[in-house]
Amino acid sequence: MNEITIGKIREAHDRIRGRIRRTPVLTSARLDELSGASLFFKCENFQKTGAFKARGALNAVLLLGEAEAARGVATHSSGNHAAALSWAAGLRGIPAHVVMPRTASRFKLASVERYGGRITLCEPTHKAREEAAARIVRETGAALIHPYNDPRIIVGQGTAALEFLEDVPDLDVILCPVGGGGLLSGTAIAARGVKPGIKVLAGEPEGAADASLSFSLGERRPVEHPASIADGLLAFVGDLTFPIIRRQVDGIAVVSEEAIVAAVRQLLEVLKIAVEPSGAVAYAAVAEKRVGIAGKRVGIILSGGNLDLDRAPWAKPVP
Amino acid sequence: MNEITIGKIREAHDRIRGRIRRTPVLTSARLDELSGASLFFKCENFQKTGAFKARGALNAVLLLGEAEAARGVATHSSGNHAAALSWAAGLRGIPAHVVMPRTASRFKLASVERYGGRITLCEPTHKAREEAAARIVRETGAALIHPYNDPRIIVGQGTAALEFLEDVPDLDVILCPVGGGGLLSGTAIAARGVKPGIKVLAGEPEGAADASLSFSLGERRPVEHPASIADGLLAFVGDLTFPIIRRQVDGIAVVSEEAIVAAVRQLLEVLKIAVEPSGAVAYAAVAEKRVGIAGKRVGIILSGGNLDLDRAPWAKPVP
Repeated sequence: MNEITIGKIREAHDRIRGRIRRTPVLTSARLDELSGASLFFKCENFQKTGAFKARGALNAVLLLGEAEAARGVATHSSGNHAAALSWAAGLRGIPAHVVMPRTASRFKLASVERYGGRITLCEPTHKAREEAAARIVRETGAALIHPYNDPRIIVGQGTAALEFLEDVPDLDVILCPVGGGGLLSGTAIAARGVKPGIKVLAGEPEGAADASLSFSLGERRPVEHPASIADGLLAFVGDLTFPIIRRQVDGIAVVSEEAIVAAVRQLLEVLKIAVEPSGAVAYAAVAEKRVGIAGKRVGIILSGGNLDLDRAPWAKPVP
Repeated sequence: MNEITIGKIREAHDRIRGRIRRTPVLTSARLDELSGASLFFKCENFQKTGAFKARGALNAVLLLGEAEAARGVATHSSGNHAAALSWAAGLRGIPAHVVMPRTASRFKLASVERYGGRITLCEPTHKAREEAAARIVRETGAALIHPYNDPRIIVGQGTAALEFLEDVPDLDVILCPVGGGGLLSGTAIAARGVKPGIKVLAGEPEGAADASLSFSLGERRPVEHPASIADGLLAFVGDLTFPIIRRQVDGIAVVSEEAIVAAVRQLLEVLKIAVEPSGAVAYAAVAEKRVGIAGKRVGIILSGGNLDLDRAPWAKPVP
């Protein structure tokens, strides 16, 4: 399972396709005009659990052997991966243990609870989360499913690009957000596997631009105190995902916080869809003119739609 | 053209289908669970110009004779019909004259301007609007296209239900909002024409419940000072639309303002789509349990998505 290939991504797609949504591709004459390109939006905000994370999580859960599966799965991610893993475990009828910082928003807690995840709260430090997860794994024998640095996850996430190129075969460019790199590495392998000449680009928030930094240095380098409204993209690019990205991706564009907020709002106003800040970062790179796409056919993965309306990013600050 | 039949609706569909969007039908396991029914959402928020109004407006514009068309079209509606008529006129390359009250929001003005409508501002009274429109018609010879009380508009609006029943043939119930009654009367004729046993229901805001009142009295009766966050549904049901509604509709449910706001929010959070308050009223009737649909297959028309984010209805009031 360790070599990640287009064949593995096709197998993953066959494995999960009956349980995930075939998400639609939207277009907009107005956004084409504004961007000077032909834009195609793959709407993973409509995916089960509201994000592409359902793909990788379900693939990983379905690949567990019977005995292993019976002991359940665990994670210490608090975002969309946690909800997706809880959902996927529920489909297989096995427990999902989710370690979350006690400072997590009500919105995130509610999402994991909705899908039946068993939440363990811990102190909001990386160390406390890892320790709590390790203890759960020790006590229950649950399989720890990393949110991105795992071949089962990477090939699962790659299935979005596979569908995208089935629906729009003549894309010149494919663009997605990058955090830990699970979606980007899977997208690159799938897209180049189907169409070798395609250009693969990513968008990354300027406040958490470790992937961009690592990409230009040629080696993994974290940034200190990553921070962005795109809270799903704060993770440090993985030692499994980075080599793939380095080899198969053409560029990583850094986008401003303002561009991310504007992108969320514009996607709501023009496409009429809810996309969370992390999910709008690839489009933000286009809207902020950080990628050269004039006249091209550009596929943009809108990766998630779990927008916390109590923190609507366009809301004016209360005076 | 004056008798409104399913045949006329099919002809209208053939006339407009190449220029409008075939809008998708969405479903949600979570909303099914909450409602105790199987819900299907016809997403006219994704329609050209952001609302079903594009259907009727385009049908009316395409039905004009050459000489008549050359003189342009006019309306004194300030909402989605005005934008839709401007868009449809633009497709035919003819002018659209739109009379709007000088108090109209920047959002509504911008929408009409975007589609090339020629705006005439007037005092915010019904009399001033009618006079301004009459003057434009006198001066330019433009054809006045009423937003709902016109057979060309009614059959155009009916095409949404036609598509809906093509995509989901076994609906037990179809539900849409009612303002002036163009969508509801067209929906009733289309739905019963395709499937005689189907139940046709509507939702109406309690602050503008003239259609519901008229329906129970058996004759048209306006309400004084209609007011609702669903600003597209304030119109008085028409003398052409009401007889159809009276004969072909099974019931009109009145919904609270709170339910409309909650529906807009829930559609954003769960379906991940932007639906404006007027467009969410049919779903609000379901969520507020104002219609008996337990166990049924229910088609809900989400009629528009032009949500003014500066007035986001879920936003907490500034203290």
